[in-house]
Amino acid sequence: MASLHSSITPKHRATIREVAEIAGVSISTVSRALTGHRGVGDQTRSRVVEIAKKVGYQPSGAARSLRTSRSLTIAMLAPDLENPGNQTEVRTAISVAAARGYSLMVFDYSAGSTGGFSVINRIRESDVDGVLLGAARLKVTRELLDLLESGIPVESVGESTTPHVEGTFIVDNATWFHYDKAACTHAARRLFSMGHRQVAYIDWRDQSLLGRTRFQAFQECAIAHGLPESSVTLLKAAKKEEAVGLVQHALANSPTPTAIISGNGVMTPYTLEGIHSAHARIPDDLSFIAFGDSPWHRAFQPSLSVIRRNIEGEAAGMVERLIARIEGREVPEPDIQPTEFIDRASIAPPPQTEPD
Amino acid sequence: MASLHSSITPKHRATIREVAEIAGVSISTVSRALTGHRGVGDQTRSRVVEIAKKVGYQPSGAARSLRTSRSLTIAMLAPDLENPGNQTEVRTAISVAAARGYSLMVFDYSAGSTGGFSVINRIRESDVDGVLLGAARLKVTRELLDLLESGIPVESVGESTTPHVEGTFIVDNATWFHYDKAACTHAARRLFSMGHRQVAYIDWRDQSLLGRTRFQAFQECAIAHGLPESSVTLLKAAKKEEAVGLVQHALANSPTPTAIISGNGVMTPYTLEGIHSAHARIPDDLSFIAFGDSPWHRAFQPSLSVIRRNIEGEAAGMVERLIARIEGREVPEPDIQPTEFIDRASIAPPPQTEPD
Repeated sequence: MASLHSSITPKHRATIREVAEIAGVSISTVSRALTGHRGVGDQTRSRVVEIAKKVGYQPSGAARSLRTSRSLTIAMLAPDLENPGNQTEVRTAISVAAARGYSLMVFDYSAGSTGGFSVINRIRESDVDGVLLGAARLKVTRELLDLLESGIPVESVGESTTPHVEGTFIVDNATWFHYDKAACTHAARRLFSMGHRQVAYIDWRDQSLLGRTRFQAFQECAIAHGLPESSVTLLKAAKKEEAVGLVQHALANSPTPTAIISGNGVMTPYTLEGIHSAHARIPDDLSFIAFGDSPWHRAFQPSLSVIRRNIEGEAAGMVERLIARIEGREVPEPDIQPTEFIDRASIAPPPQTEPD
Repeated sequence: MASLHSSITPKHRATIREVAEIAGVSISTVSRALTGHRGVGDQTRSRVVEIAKKVGYQPSGAARSLRTSRSLTIAMLAPDLENPGNQTEVRTAISVAAARGYSLMVFDYSAGSTGGFSVINRIRESDVDGVLLGAARLKVTRELLDLLESGIPVESVGESTTPHVEGTFIVDNATWFHYDKAACTHAARRLFSMGHRQVAYIDWRDQSLLGRTRFQAFQECAIAHGLPESSVTLLKAAKKEEAVGLVQHALANSPTPTAIISGNGVMTPYTLEGIHSAHARIPDDLSFIAFGDSPWHRAFQPSLSVIRRNIEGEAAGMVERLIARIEGREVPEPDIQPTEFIDRASIAPPPQTEPD
C-alpha cells in the first residue's frame, strides 16, 4: 500500500489576520463566525467561511481553547459499550451534541487505566467543556469524586450527580429507580396473577444497584401475592455466554421456572439461545420478559414482552442540560419518562402440571 | 434540583513547577511522566503522578498540545450510527484507542453541517492527531478531499484512502469488496442450486457502492445458473420501517420470491417483521439471509444464515495502523479477513408449487 499521506506536503496555513483583512472585518468577528457563536450575521458568517476556505485557514482548536476557554468538546464516560442500552445512549448523545455544535469524546470507562493514567485523568487533561456520566453503573473511585468536585459541569441521565460522603459517591437517579420499580411490579403482578409460582431472573454475578432494585421488586411482588421470597430466584452470570448454560440448567432442574426475566440487555439473546436449546417453547412452556427494547425484540417470534426506558429521550435531555450549564443558560429540570412494561406475545399462563 | 456544580469553588490549580520542585525532577520530566511518554522510569512516573494528585495539579491539554503538537486524540467519522455494523466498529475503535492511550472523538457524519461549519471543518480545528474513516459509505465532498490532502494521518477499514480525480474521491476497499462478492456468490449459488428461481434483495433506495456490488453478485450468479437477471429483484426502502410493507407486498404479488436477502443490518428486524406479518414461515415458505451477524441472529428461531465480515478485527487493525502512522512507526499492511457465508437454519429448498 502506498503511503499517500506522508508524501503530501501540508499547505501554507493562512493566519486569522489574513482572513480578517480579506473579509474586511475584525479578527474577533472571524473567530466568532468560524466557531458558530451568535452575534454574527448570516451573510458575514458565510463570507468569512468562504474566504477562510479559499486561503486554507484552519483555526487551531488548542489555541482557541486557550483564548476562549471553550473547546466545544464534551467528554462522555460510557461504561460497558457492549450493552445495547448504553450504545443507544452514546449514539443519541453524539447526534444531539453535534446538532448543538459540540463534539463528543467517548471514553470507555470499563477499559479502566491507560498508560499509567486513568480515563478520568485523561478527561481532566482534555480541556473538555463538560462531562456526561453515561449510566448509573460507574465504578466509584476517588478520581471520579475528584472530577465531580473539580467544578467542571457534569450531567447524568437522571437527577443530580451527588457526592455524598467523603470518598463515596452515588448517582442519585431516584426518579428513574422509582419508575423502573413500578414497571417491574406491573410485570411481576401480571405473571403471578396468571398463576406463575416459580420465576427466574437472570443478571450479572456482580449485580448493579439498579439490577438489585429490579430483582427485589419482583420478590416483593411475590410476597404481596402470598408467595415465598424463593419464588423468584437469581441466575448469576459472570459472562454473557454463561446465560445459555444457566438457563438450560434451571429448566432441567426442580423447581423449574415457568417464567424467565432477562435483567440485562447484553444477555437477552443468550438467554433465548438457552431456552431454545432446552427445547422450551415461548410462551407455551415458558413466559419471557426482557429489560430493554429494540426492533429485534419486536421481530422475534413470538414478539417479546419488555420493560422499556426511553433511553433516547433521557440521553437527549442529559446533553441539553449539560450544554445549557456550559453556556450559562438556565438548566431545565430532567424530564424522566416513566419506564413502561410492554406486554407482547411472550407471556402466557404457566403450563398445567399433570398430577403424579 | 440544586445546581451542585456551580456552587463548588474549583480548587487551587497547582502548577507543573510546584510538582517538579516537590518531586525533585525537571519540569519536562513531570510533563513526560504525566503524558505517558517513554524515557521516564516507572518509579519516577508513579512518584510524579502521586505528587500531582496530592497537590491537585491538572495538566492543561490545550497548553500541552501546543507544546508537543500531540493531542493523543483521534477523530472518527462514523456514518450512520444506527447501523449495527458501524456501532460495532465505533465500539471497537474506542476500546483499542483507549488501550493505546488515545481518546476517540466520534463525529456523526450523517449529522452533516453544524453551526455553519461542517463536521470535517470541526475535525480540522480540533487538533486531533489523526482521523479514522469509519466505513466506505461517506458523502464525497470537497471538504473531505481537502482533509485527505491536508497531510493529517488518515486510515479507513480497508486499503488506502485514495483521492483519484480532482473533486472526486474513492475509498478503495478493493480487497474487502472482493471478499464480500465471493461470499455473496457462495450464498447465491447455494440458493439457486437448491432450486430457488425468484429472490428478493432488500436495501436502501440510494444503494451504496458496496450494496450495488453485492446485489450484482447475486444477479451474476443467477445468470451463471442460466436464469434471467430478473430472478433477483431489488426492494428499495427509503426508511428502515418501509421494509415491513415492501416485504409484505413482494410476498403478496407475483412473481413471489422464495428467498429474501436483507442487504442492510438496519433493516433486518423490519424485514423479519414483514415476513411474519405475511404469515410466511422461515425456511419452509421462504429462505432468509442477512448481511451482518450478532447474538440476535443466532438466537432467532430458526437461527439466521448470514454473510459476515470480521468488523472487530478490521476496526482494530484500522486503529493500530493509524496510531503507528501518528507515532512514526512502520505501518502494517491491512489484514482483511475473508467475508464468510454462514449457513444456519433459515435456508431450505423452495416450497413445491402445486400445478394449477
